[in-house]
Amino acid sequence: MVKTVTAAVIMIGDEILSGRTQDSNLKTLAGFLAPLGVEVREARVIPDVHATIVATVQTLRKAHDYVFTTGGIGPTHDDITADAVAAAFNRPISVRADARAILETYYAGRDTDLNESRLRMARIPEGATLIANPVSGAPGFQIGNVFVMAGVPSIMRAMLEDVGHRIEGGAIVYQHTVRGKGLREGEIAVPLGALAKARPELNFGSYPWMRPAGKKDHDFGVNLVVRGRDPDLLAAAIDALVEIVSTQGAKPEIDPKD
Amino acid sequence: MVKTVTAAVIMIGDEILSGRTQDSNLKTLAGFLAPLGVEVREARVIPDVHATIVATVQTLRKAHDYVFTTGGIGPTHDDITADAVAAAFNRPISVRADARAILETYYAGRDTDLNESRLRMARIPEGATLIANPVSGAPGFQIGNVFVMAGVPSIMRAMLEDVGHRIEGGAIVYQHTVRGKGLREGEIAVPLGALAKARPELNFGSYPWMRPAGKKDHDFGVNLVVRGRDPDLLAAAIDALVEIVSTQGAKPEIDPKD
Repeated sequence: MVKTVTAAVIMIGDEILSGRTQDSNLKTLAGFLAPLGVEVREARVIPDVHATIVATVQTLRKAHDYVFTTGGIGPTHDDITADAVAAAFNRPISVRADARAILETYYAGRDTDLNESRLRMARIPEGATLIANPVSGAPGFQIGNVFVMAGVPSIMRAMLEDVGHRIEGGAIVYQHTVRGKGLREGEIAVPLGALAKARPELNFGSYPWMRPAGKKDHDFGVNLVVRGRDPDLLAAAIDALVEIVSTQGAKPEIDPKD
Repeated sequence: MVKTVTAAVIMIGDEILSGRTQDSNLKTLAGFLAPLGVEVREARVIPDVHATIVATVQTLRKAHDYVFTTGGIGPTHDDITADAVAAAFNRPISVRADARAILETYYAGRDTDLNESRLRMARIPEGATLIANPVSGAPGFQIGNVFVMAGVPSIMRAMLEDVGHRIEGGAIVYQHTVRGKGLREGEIAVPLGALAKARPELNFGSYPWMRPAGKKDHDFGVNLVVRGRDPDLLAAAIDALVEIVSTQGAKPEIDPKD
């Protein structure tokens, strides 16, 4: 029996809650972790409030194998994630020599002053290990099972290069999508439900979609998704989904992105 | 003293956690609620698991004035939101005559069979009021302070037309963005922090952005955002932000979308 390894993602930032910014880091993290055998099972968007960050980190790091935070590690007054994560672990935090050296090298090469504000980005909790930031210098960090990442998507993605090797994943959950253009959920719910019941080892999802009217390619359909760990069971399930779609007169397409 | 009215959003769906689907409903809801005087203060993405939905609804409906759920109200086996929300309120749920009548009318007009699967979408908890769905018939519902909405973005948006009139908002939080192209956070952190300290009635955020290299319009900058309730204080804060950006030699632009 291979083990299940789970993760939670905490997106820290008033700008996501206010609707000003569309998060994309959750999708990036989930897509990065899946092939490593880590399932994201929960995500929370929380405001830039110290007590909320502390409490959320403490709750989720006990509930999951890994926690990833995004946002709030820059040089301005509203960047409070590092201090809050230190508090969540009850560790002191201060400017650390290794992080300071990284910033000195980074800014020296760019003829930019490492001022007091930028030096805040070298504040790292005691006992944490740094996560390299090849885009903008200032490192993230790992403390226990919590990975503290940047919020800017291109920086967050780049930091993942220094994260993968630290992850001990479990069984990989594969997912496959059978697209049924012109299909309606109400027509396939019975055979799909029966298939899901017959295969409790797998997880079946049904996701209707529609393109807005007025566009040239106006249409609709359903994506049938199966997730699971056993390749043989998955292969049989894909065949069964293809048959369910075909029976309704729709042409099934297996999504090549999976 | 005008009151603060808060909301939480619960996005229900394995497909968002797996990274297969990019959520956009949070942004839509936050943008819809802000002008009504409701601040989204928390959002959670949770899997299609009955006990998790029940517990999350119970926790968040006590912590906030309003809760919005998206996803899981279709006709297939994985659509378990309505039953879970009923359980969270300890109410019975069954096919209700008013919801059934809506589906009968909708499908009769489309020459489509209201089969057993589709009839599942008429399962509504006792005491809930329906939320009209002008796109695909099957209603959402409101029970207590919880609004149960569709997950498909175009349907969710359309349902909001039947939601606004039910909301009792508080003081509206306005937000304004001063964009500084070519600005770096490390250069403005001190005056921005001083401004934030001098104006505790307002909330100041600093959001760096960069466009990926290789694109024609490769560039970077910082968006300075101020949020608050008092128009006079906000106007003064915008002037102060414009000055902070100008002092660094960047040309401030006030975002016309706010």
